[in-house]
Amino acid sequence: MSFPKEVFIKEVGPRDGLQNEKKLIPTEQKIAWIEKLVQTGLRYLEVTSFVHPKWIPQLADSEQVVKHLPSHPDVTYAALIPNRKGLERALDTPIHEFSVFMSASEGHNKRNINKTIDETYSVLEEVVKEGKATGRNIRGYVSTVFGCPYDGDVAVSQVVKVSERLLEMGVDELSLGDTIGVANPRQVQQVLYELTKYIPQEKIALHFHNTRGMALANVWAALEMGFTIFDSSLGGLGGCPYAKGASGNLATDDLNHMLESMGVETGIQTSQLMKAADFIQEAVGKSLPSHQMQIRNQMRKEEDNR
Amino acid sequence: MSFPKEVFIKEVGPRDGLQNEKKLIPTEQKIAWIEKLVQTGLRYLEVTSFVHPKWIPQLADSEQVVKHLPSHPDVTYAALIPNRKGLERALDTPIHEFSVFMSASEGHNKRNINKTIDETYSVLEEVVKEGKATGRNIRGYVSTVFGCPYDGDVAVSQVVKVSERLLEMGVDELSLGDTIGVANPRQVQQVLYELTKYIPQEKIALHFHNTRGMALANVWAALEMGFTIFDSSLGGLGGCPYAKGASGNLATDDLNHMLESMGVETGIQTSQLMKAADFIQEAVGKSLPSHQMQIRNQMRKEEDNR
Repeated sequence: MSFPKEVFIKEVGPRDGLQNEKKLIPTEQKIAWIEKLVQTGLRYLEVTSFVHPKWIPQLADSEQVVKHLPSHPDVTYAALIPNRKGLERALDTPIHEFSVFMSASEGHNKRNINKTIDETYSVLEEVVKEGKATGRNIRGYVSTVFGCPYDGDVAVSQVVKVSERLLEMGVDELSLGDTIGVANPRQVQQVLYELTKYIPQEKIALHFHNTRGMALANVWAALEMGFTIFDSSLGGLGGCPYAKGASGNLATDDLNHMLESMGVETGIQTSQLMKAADFIQEAVGKSLPSHQMQIRNQMRKEEDNR
Repeated sequence: MSFPKEVFIKEVGPRDGLQNEKKLIPTEQKIAWIEKLVQTGLRYLEVTSFVHPKWIPQLADSEQVVKHLPSHPDVTYAALIPNRKGLERALDTPIHEFSVFMSASEGHNKRNINKTIDETYSVLEEVVKEGKATGRNIRGYVSTVFGCPYDGDVAVSQVVKVSERLLEMGVDELSLGDTIGVANPRQVQQVLYELTKYIPQEKIALHFHNTRGMALANVWAALEMGFTIFDSSLGGLGGCPYAKGASGNLATDDLNHMLESMGVETGIQTSQLMKAADFIQEAVGKSLPSHQMQIRNQMRKEEDNR
């Protein structure tokens, strides 16, 4: 496994970021932001979730967002599909890719989806089947891969089991999530080493959270093993990483900075990326938690004081 | 080079942290804090700098601090010695170890010490000589090892040159600093690989800053190469990591958390460590920037709201 020359960053901010922000962003602003994101060179964006507005009012405008997405030959737009109703709504839109999700641990799956892991498969199977039937790729999020807030440690065998089942049902790519931000780089390498005995490496994306400051260490650990697909959210959008219920998503700008400084290609233009971060920071009306944005905000403040 | 089972964390908060805090902490509070730090299991503390109070009023009480340090058979107390005058003051105290400092880059050395690198050696030589003559160990900080705010890239050959010279004059340990927090893990491994062709690995400590979120990634990269000595500052003390002139020190509690979660021994009792962090947070009167402290502060806020 050689050190990657290129990395594919998958931007989840418009969905995973905005759903954790209190402020409701108007649809036009979301579209304007997505346009800026596309201009950065990002080529995969998860733009919304077809979840019931009662649960996530921030994403109540899914159909409108998808309808107005800027067309670009190389950009894939994805949306999260939580259930049958979401599937029906999504099928009526031109969204390119569906994402399904479940947990590697029973405790989290139960609280998050209100089903056992076994009961969850059939719901996901339907989404995968109908998505595939319409020519769409399917992404499968596996949560709590590196630890569960209810069950504690999660056995790799459990991650393997869920991952194999998802691939069997037709999922094209797995995104393995450190949902509560507890993974450490040593564990990342141990888990990925075991996992790749059963699951093809190229099917695996990694979704780290920076809750305890280890996200970039975990990215590095995965890079060393040759992994090349990482999820992140611009500016660390999704609220303060320490607030209750907030995600602490790894920030795209911090990830991009590390990769750029190491000479790893991402296809992203950093100056455009920071403009897109400025835009959404202004829209949510509070400073974003990424290191890059905090440095940027600080430098601006110093300039203003001159 | 095998993965370390144990790591030696050297706490620099009382010096490197407090000198970057606006608030002046009374001597008794410093001593009370240092007592708590010793109770955590930390066995090396840099407690002050014998710098002129005009430059760093926060550390004007060096003599008083050293005079009242809690005696402990296994704890080493160190102080920074910037010049001849500082040396004279320090020699009159029972401080165990002296630290000297210079930069690997001319630009930073010039601005920081107002001397060229060549001119700096003779100043340091005097401190080393007199320190050694009194049976003290000497630590040598090398700044800007991974990048300079004035000169940009810093050649490894320059780091080798400065490091060799310091060891030749009798320095016992080098602490290599990522002064402006620009190092990435790939660079850390490349620099350390080159450096250890000339410098014995066991003489090298690493001093990372978390300005761009890469400190723990850099620690991991160094651990993989078998490095076992790391400097850090409890709670990330030393101000907001983004404020002008502040250090963005790697936080001891974040470092300890990562090591603990990976099963690496540090000899530190985490519960005591967090109590010591609470104490200094209260003393400086603002929330500390480490991830561990932010989680802790957030949890407390949520409990209070119940």
